[in-house]
Amino acid sequence: MVLKAMKENNSENDYSVPIGVSARHVHLTQEHVEVLFGKGYELTKKKELMGGQYASNELVTIVGYKLRAMENVRILGPVRKMSQVEISKTDAIKLGIKAPIKESGDIKGSAPISIVGPKGAVYLEEGCIVAKRHIHMAPTDAKAAGVVNGQVVSVKADNERGTTFNHVTIRVDASYTLEMHIDTDEANAAGIATGDTAIIIK
Amino acid sequence: MVLKAMKENNSENDYSVPIGVSARHVHLTQEHVEVLFGKGYELTKKKELMGGQYASNELVTIVGYKLRAMENVRILGPVRKMSQVEISKTDAIKLGIKAPIKESGDIKGSAPISIVGPKGAVYLEEGCIVAKRHIHMAPTDAKAAGVVNGQVVSVKADNERGTTFNHVTIRVDASYTLEMHIDTDEANAAGIATGDTAIIIK
Repeated sequence: MVLKAMKENNSENDYSVPIGVSARHVHLTQEHVEVLFGKGYELTKKKELMGGQYASNELVTIVGYKLRAMENVRILGPVRKMSQVEISKTDAIKLGIKAPIKESGDIKGSAPISIVGPKGAVYLEEGCIVAKRHIHMAPTDAKAAGVVNGQVVSVKADNERGTTFNHVTIRVDASYTLEMHIDTDEANAAGIATGDTAIIIK
Repeated sequence: MVLKAMKENNSENDYSVPIGVSARHVHLTQEHVEVLFGKGYELTKKKELMGGQYASNELVTIVGYKLRAMENVRILGPVRKMSQVEISKTDAIKLGIKAPIKESGDIKGSAPISIVGPKGAVYLEEGCIVAKRHIHMAPTDAKAAGVVNGQVVSVKADNERGTTFNHVTIRVDASYTLEMHIDTDEANAAGIATGDTAIIIK
């Protein structure tokens, strides 16, 4: 069926995808929320994001193993099964740490990081990554674009700078809203802001 | 006997005391050293200080409840029974926290603070103080100066600025080296550097 969908969309060369730029942020387990903000504390919503996520009102300070700190990093809700810190390569350089480029959720072998809240602190032995760019889409989008979950594509942003991002992973899930996620370094390097669009080229 | 010593020294109005200026620093329990630096870790000596204390090579980053961080704060060894952070009022303002003026060791009701090391983080529910100025002395010094443990005196620093510090507590212990301890704010306000002297006036 997927192959059939791919064939049907074979002539579709210009599938446009809106881009969302992710600033540095933290995902937390409920347990860690309570360590950082107090027993029974729950994250509060500041702004809805794509795919059921939200920017919370709560902030933390992150500290790397060279003891350099980055203050007021936003937490994204809802809580997850694993705590994770996503930073840009520029942030990693400022913190003096080696954060590998990884898909969200794949924190094995990633950098250690401390997360400090107003009521406590936690140390993650691993959990700090630079997020690998990817495209979220629902199965209907995947069908329309002629791609499948896990497929690696290139994405062309045609603006003043003009950049093609290669090695972009497609991630398909019924809960996903169509959006390509890049970080602030990628956005700045390519002259892209949230809401700009790019074209999937295969 | 103490009263006799005091009487004998009654005519002694000019008892000179060397001053030691304390920069912000942290005291840690061995347990906390191991949380911050790894299991079995021991502090290493960088520089001997008065009274058997030393500046360690190890540094930490401290973070207050407003999430503001201060990087590379020196640990003083040896380890103690209680962890404690001593900062200046200027530091407290920078961190956005209310640290009370307290004698070292008297941390009840003091400010919460997070301490982050390269291998972990600890949160002290209380433990951050602005150190109350005091004079350390051995019993022989106390006798010579005509003062007793716990006595509160004034100390006059006669230099370009010219300052008299009131409410200075005398702390007498056989292990103490004669020195008045003030923090960087007090030193800067009074134009004093470590090694300068001041006079006890009663």
